[in-house]
Amino acid sequence: MTATARHPDGPVIGLDLGGTKIAAALVGADATVLARHTRPTPATRGAGAVLDALAEAALAVRAPGTTAIGVAAAGVIDPVTGTVTSATDTIRGWAGTRLATGLADRTGLPVACDNDVRAAAGPELAGLGDDGTLIYAAVGTGVGGAVAAAGRMLHGAAGIAGHLGHLPSPEAAGLPCTCGATGHLEAIAAGPAITAHYARLGGTPADRLQTVAERAAAGDGHATEAITLGARATGRALGGLANALGPHRVVVTGGVPRIGALYRDALCAAFAAELMPPLRSLRPVAPRGGADAAVLGAAELTRTLPLHEPHLTGARP
Amino acid sequence: MTATARHPDGPVIGLDLGGTKIAAALVGADATVLARHTRPTPATRGAGAVLDALAEAALAVRAPGTTAIGVAAAGVIDPVTGTVTSATDTIRGWAGTRLATGLADRTGLPVACDNDVRAAAGPELAGLGDDGTLIYAAVGTGVGGAVAAAGRMLHGAAGIAGHLGHLPSPEAAGLPCTCGATGHLEAIAAGPAITAHYARLGGTPADRLQTVAERAAAGDGHATEAITLGARATGRALGGLANALGPHRVVVTGGVPRIGALYRDALCAAFAAELMPPLRSLRPVAPRGGADAAVLGAAELTRTLPLHEPHLTGARP
Repeated sequence: MTATARHPDGPVIGLDLGGTKIAAALVGADATVLARHTRPTPATRGAGAVLDALAEAALAVRAPGTTAIGVAAAGVIDPVTGTVTSATDTIRGWAGTRLATGLADRTGLPVACDNDVRAAAGPELAGLGDDGTLIYAAVGTGVGGAVAAAGRMLHGAAGIAGHLGHLPSPEAAGLPCTCGATGHLEAIAAGPAITAHYARLGGTPADRLQTVAERAAAGDGHATEAITLGARATGRALGGLANALGPHRVVVTGGVPRIGALYRDALCAAFAAELMPPLRSLRPVAPRGGADAAVLGAAELTRTLPLHEPHLTGARP
Repeated sequence: MTATARHPDGPVIGLDLGGTKIAAALVGADATVLARHTRPTPATRGAGAVLDALAEAALAVRAPGTTAIGVAAAGVIDPVTGTVTSATDTIRGWAGTRLATGLADRTGLPVACDNDVRAAAGPELAGLGDDGTLIYAAVGTGVGGAVAAAGRMLHGAAGIAGHLGHLPSPEAAGLPCTCGATGHLEAIAAGPAITAHYARLGGTPADRLQTVAERAAAGDGHATEAITLGARATGRALGGLANALGPHRVVVTGGVPRIGALYRDALCAAFAAELMPPLRSLRPVAPRGGADAAVLGAAELTRTLPLHEPHLTGARP
């Protein structure tokens, strides 16, 4: 646990912490992946065990000259304090964990950390320039995302920037939202919300969105209606947000858009219908990143966020 | 028309160009107003006459050592080219005017320019820090505004950032918007939209919002309903946008909020009801700026935007 001399051009380690698996990569200065490693997340064994597993994953890819670690994790992460502000129970005792210093002390490397969605959005800013504005929507179990402006990923008050699921949605009128409010986008557009709406329309209750998508493909009108309504609500909300921000790029990702063209076409049409004339050429796109997007985004955090240094044991009283 | 030596701490001139009047101020480095001047806008006499009047207003307040001019003007202004991208017909032939170089050549001073709403929003960023996010809504004949993030006023693709009136609004369902889309905030929340909705509800048609406000104060239920609906729609849209951006400050200004507490209370209640729990302490506020806000914001443009230098006649072929 000694401090590491910094080599600005040395490789960095990107760690993507999920509820079931940890992915690690050693990333060169040119954003190429030099080494990969994955291991299970010991989610039920608590925060200490997860920090140990993150350190082991980092050490498995570490090479001489490695300068820093970037960690992308679920939940609300404060990059300034390096702490998990709040989190679900997917990882036992994860909320409140001192993620950055815990990992820095275990590896001897400085650590930067952020929310996983915001980390994955980072590389999508490439090429947009110093004034680049990006809307990045992640539509899955919830509706989240990230927003960048003036070339920087926004955190916002209380780290809340990017909560795109909590925009008002005409399509969600009267529906309760997970946040306690009513009529928010997430209440009609998240995967479980589409599945629930399908049942409300009279469809035979389904346990997951994929089932609804299969029924739509087989000609079930209620399934088609629920999916297109969720897509339309998302497209409208993102189009309106585009009018307010003037983004240079709009990315839509997550499990829900992957259900197929029925969803994506409805989303794109609704998005286009909202846009003010000067934005008419704007189209929502899929993320550029391939299989390595999560670890590359995590590695990039070491260049954009505060680095938390390891404690120097020798210097302690 | 010679170039002026730059004194970074010298006073600057702020010009606020409106459809009926031009306001000018000489502003010291500590943002104090050292001199003021106003004159009519020769709106019907075309762009050249307006540029002449702007130059005369600037020279009326100019002092030795003045370093630059900042101009705030209605319409879509491109600060990089210094050009009026588009504008209404309030000033004849204003769209396409080379505002910055036209004024620089007339005064010999470098000129920065931007949209008037964005200029007025600039001083509201003071004290929010390098990561400051600001939502600034101007509710009047239309619903516009400005958004700042990462401590900088956003322009966005096609200069469109700040068009807050073109967020989808559940309260505006089915109503045509000035932009060609349907169901946008402006269609229920702008001053004329509230007046029109009052008539749709069964109120005796009124020619302006002030009349509707007076009838509400006298107990007219339709007037109260139209005003509170416009306020509620604005509060919801701004609350949802706050969830997406995590602003540190939300300002609501313009003629509509000035109609009274009925409007402002409904807006604040609707805003609060939208917010995610971590933002619950956020409240929309009135702008800090007093009577000098417009010229002070215009003057500040000289410090935040590109300066367009006058042509050097002597150097021309």
